[in-house]
Amino acid sequence: MMSRWSQSALERVALWVSAPKRLKSAASKDGAMIIVPNRRETPSPESTRHHSIYIHPRVRRGARPGSPASARRSPPKGRKSPQNPGGGDPGRGGVWTSDRRRVMFPGTRSMKPRWITLTTDFGLDDWFVGTMKGVIGAICPGAHIVDLTHGVPPGDVQAGAFALASAYRYFPRGTVHLAVVDPGVGSDRPALAVKAREHLFVGPDNGLLSIAIEQLGKAEIRQITNRRWMLEKVSQTFHGRDIFAPVAAHLSAGKRFASVGPVARAQVALNLPRPREGAEEISGAVVYVDRYGNAITNIRNEGFQGPGRAADVFLRSRRISRVHDCYQSVPVGKPVCVPGSAGFLEIAVNQGNAARQLRLKVGSAVAVRW
Amino acid sequence: MMSRWSQSALERVALWVSAPKRLKSAASKDGAMIIVPNRRETPSPESTRHHSIYIHPRVRRGARPGSPASARRSPPKGRKSPQNPGGGDPGRGGVWTSDRRRVMFPGTRSMKPRWITLTTDFGLDDWFVGTMKGVIGAICPGAHIVDLTHGVPPGDVQAGAFALASAYRYFPRGTVHLAVVDPGVGSDRPALAVKAREHLFVGPDNGLLSIAIEQLGKAEIRQITNRRWMLEKVSQTFHGRDIFAPVAAHLSAGKRFASVGPVARAQVALNLPRPREGAEEISGAVVYVDRYGNAITNIRNEGFQGPGRAADVFLRSRRISRVHDCYQSVPVGKPVCVPGSAGFLEIAVNQGNAARQLRLKVGSAVAVRW
Amino acid sequence: MMSRWSQSALERVALWVSAPKRLKSAASKDGAMIIVPNRRETPSPESTRHHSIYIHPRVRRGARPGSPASARRSPPKGRKSPQNPGGGDPGRGGVWTSDRRRVMFPGTRSMKPRWITLTTDFGLDDWFVGTMKGVIGAICPGAHIVDLTHGVPPGDVQAGAFALASAYRYFPRGTVHLAVVDPGVGSDRPALAVKAREHLFVGPDNGLLSIAIEQLGKAEIRQITNRRWMLEKVSQTFHGRDIFAPVAAHLSAGKRFASVGPVARAQVALNLPRPREGAEEISGAVVYVDRYGNAITNIRNEGFQGPGRAADVFLRSRRISRVHDCYQSVPVGKPVCVPGSAGFLEIAVNQGNAARQLRLKVGSAVAVRW
Repeated sequence: MMSRWSQSALERVALWVSAPKRLKSAASKDGAMIIVPNRRETPSPESTRHHSIYIHPRVRRGARPGSPASARRSPPKGRKSPQNPGGGDPGRGGVWTSDRRRVMFPGTRSMKPRWITLTTDFGLDDWFVGTMKGVIGAICPGAHIVDLTHGVPPGDVQAGAFALASAYRYFPRGTVHLAVVDPGVGSDRPALAVKAREHLFVGPDNGLLSIAIEQLGKAEIRQITNRRWMLEKVSQTFHGRDIFAPVAAHLSAGKRFASVGPVARAQVALNLPRPREGAEEISGAVVYVDRYGNAITNIRNEGFQGPGRAADVFLRSRRISRVHDCYQSVPVGKPVCVPGSAGFLEIAVNQGNAARQLRLKVGSAVAVRW
Repeated sequence: MMSRWSQSALERVALWVSAPKRLKSAASKDGAMIIVPNRRETPSPESTRHHSIYIHPRVRRGARPGSPASARRSPPKGRKSPQNPGGGDPGRGGVWTSDRRRVMFPGTRSMKPRWITLTTDFGLDDWFVGTMKGVIGAICPGAHIVDLTHGVPPGDVQAGAFALASAYRYFPRGTVHLAVVDPGVGSDRPALAVKAREHLFVGPDNGLLSIAIEQLGKAEIRQITNRRWMLEKVSQTFHGRDIFAPVAAHLSAGKRFASVGPVARAQVALNLPRPREGAEEISGAVVYVDRYGNAITNIRNEGFQGPGRAADVFLRSRRISRVHDCYQSVPVGKPVCVPGSAGFLEIAVNQGNAARQLRLKVGSAVAVRW
Repeated sequence: MMSRWSQSALERVALWVSAPKRLKSAASKDGAMIIVPNRRETPSPESTRHHSIYIHPRVRRGARPGSPASARRSPPKGRKSPQNPGGGDPGRGGVWTSDRRRVMFPGTRSMKPRWITLTTDFGLDDWFVGTMKGVIGAICPGAHIVDLTHGVPPGDVQAGAFALASAYRYFPRGTVHLAVVDPGVGSDRPALAVKAREHLFVGPDNGLLSIAIEQLGKAEIRQITNRRWMLEKVSQTFHGRDIFAPVAAHLSAGKRFASVGPVARAQVALNLPRPREGAEEISGAVVYVDRYGNAITNIRNEGFQGPGRAADVFLRSRRISRVHDCYQSVPVGKPVCVPGSAGFLEIAVNQGNAARQLRLKVGSAVAVRW
């Protein structure tokens, strides 16, 4: 004799993975489902919740008491950690639907497509970036690969580190950030894999990952030594393709982070200038100039924003402008200082090029005064 | 006692979504399945047919007569329009399998991966474009993001509008086109979301979307005001990341278009030059110069093509060439005029650079004469 | 009373859609399944067969004493090769869900997302590349499109051919490589589709594919004539969008390779310089200069590597350096010759630009001497 639940098996299949809230209560009243709200899976402002739906054990027993088959198919117990909101081995992830099915993303062990970002100084004119993507695809065909930028000036580790640190936090949790600005390729500089909160990083130990790591605080850093995760033949001139890309792909495909190699320490950190805060002044410097000629400084927006803190910005002794809200606060062609989108004071010219017009470059001294 | 269909409920799950034709008749003889051939889903020249498979109502009743639950879970009636060949709300789409399950693409509410195009003047040297993709991925991890171009000259709204209008129609229906050439960012210019036929657009109200909207005719235009679809913190200098990208992602994930904000009117339209058509002449102008130095005009191919319409093209009073079929119709290094791939008369030099050689630029006067 | 088959219905669902051949006979002996082999769905060199599996009516009605089901249904063991790191048949790949069902990738007939690479001289400033991706997406929405490079100098077929040949082998098997460097567009040069081992290529017959084809050895070459795989309107100036992209997308979606058109021969092969090997010298030439100013020659790494083969590299009569392992083997700013990552001798300057410093360009004579 079948239980009622078995009779309506088909109907259960229909249950939506991300069930609306009203369904949750309905289902629990019924005593048939356990719907476990996962933690927020996305860093988006809106809470997009997913639910894992399990058939209640009683129901399972009802259908076939003690069935070894059903036991076999139970969802894994799953440590629920912020790292792995879906529960279970982070490599396996997945959401179990009501019919004991785990929806998996092809080519990964995850139900979500895994994202990989690339930050390099390779440019786009050669086949280097494309080749790295091929290596990733061969290992993790479901990966969504996104270029952060390949326009880092050749060998400019600081610019690469700043770009990476300005962008990583906007990506889905679990994204692997692969960064290769690596003038020391082929030398004995170590290769690192880093796991910090929900973010994964792969790159050379030359400071490229250091700004992001510092921002994230506690990080698990490992040296990449697992030969089996690299290409069979490792060249001495293209570790991006032969080491970093395949390692990132294996991590993206859900392999265990600890398998990458032994715990290590990052040996190189960038010696970034830090702003000095006085009572009536914060003095800092330009650390990045973007394509529009906007100069991004190392002075945090929090330092000069807030009620009653109308401030002026100076380039040495020359006053540039008051701190405004947006570029349009001044006439076209005039300099303007704004709290920048990367989190730092930015010097711009409304619809113009501040770097050219004000002769700004990385290192130029900037001060905010009250 | 279970109905026959209920007993084999799970077996039906095994049925393949795109069942071969001979199966259709078998199933209908059986009285068990209704297999509805969908209309063409792709704009491809070849008709790729999919089938939606439904359990026949009688069979559903057999399992649980008159169950409101099963009625509730019926596939939506689905307006079947050329716009939305899958039927149903274009945001929902989907194919229902025999077990009443809709096969969905992870991270969307659609069974198809959703496409998002990006058109900006951000360039590729900074992290701006990558960051927008991260925001999209965090909200809609299954999105396929394609760069239309990020090489629009900074602030050149007309070039961006022309690029967008030349490309959007080649994308899968339901694609969200996200465009940000936005010199007025942070000012009070409205942000728009537009739905026109099967196309969705998101961008500032500065004319950037206007050429595409005009081409599409009837469009539903809404002002973006839904704060919950934006990032928590909205900067005044990077609406691409903080407003446009998350809105595009929510639309791509299948959220209701109307939720974006109230119905509005586009306030800015580009003042594009229009060609004048005379009895023996069409006079127009160059509106875009591409990377090859080919000059694209605003004179439609239809205007000068057709039987017996052999025409000459003039730059002011200087004759450039007859209208030919392809670049190779003239010797290497010679000027040639062809019906261009964007739908407009194009002035080129066979394997050379027409803009340089003929000193053409946006605005140059061009005439076709018979 | 349920039959045992009905009771274990879930297990049957588990059956692999593209079941291995041994399963077919087992199942038919069992009298439980009808497994209909589909036609070949993928153009991969390996025969990837899919099967539609139906429960036999007799079984549905009643039940059928069982079979060693679980053993039969184990996932394939999967050769793990560096080429195919995911293990398993590359054409079939393999992620097994808990209920033994294969998740198919929307928009393809494959469970894996299909990869398409693009190599063009279109640059990224216009909408050309984006439009091609749109065409691909409209036909094969699940395609993963990767830019190999769009920075091939306009019309430089050799540079494009070299880029393609350096990268294709790193992509997943079954990847379609779409290449358009096509100064002869619109003329009567044929369009080709090539299948060689597990690689597919689409492009004009102007030598662009020739280096890759030569490397791959045996290849099936067909002329693209299938009008139904092209866009409805084929322009004379943008075959990338109107012919090559849709053909690549149809192949990627799993259409039969032979349907592309009749078997043909490539008419154009690049006249690449070949190195001359003497007893104490190999003489060759620079064939590519990359963004770092590294000069890649046509002298294979195998030619000068190996035990006891310490060699010097000369530019005409001027000695450049010994062959080293990596760039860092010499002081910063000094010339260095290394076995390059593309498989050929490479002349570089440690953290400098060799092409500028040594005045190297494509064609410069290079010799390795012992």
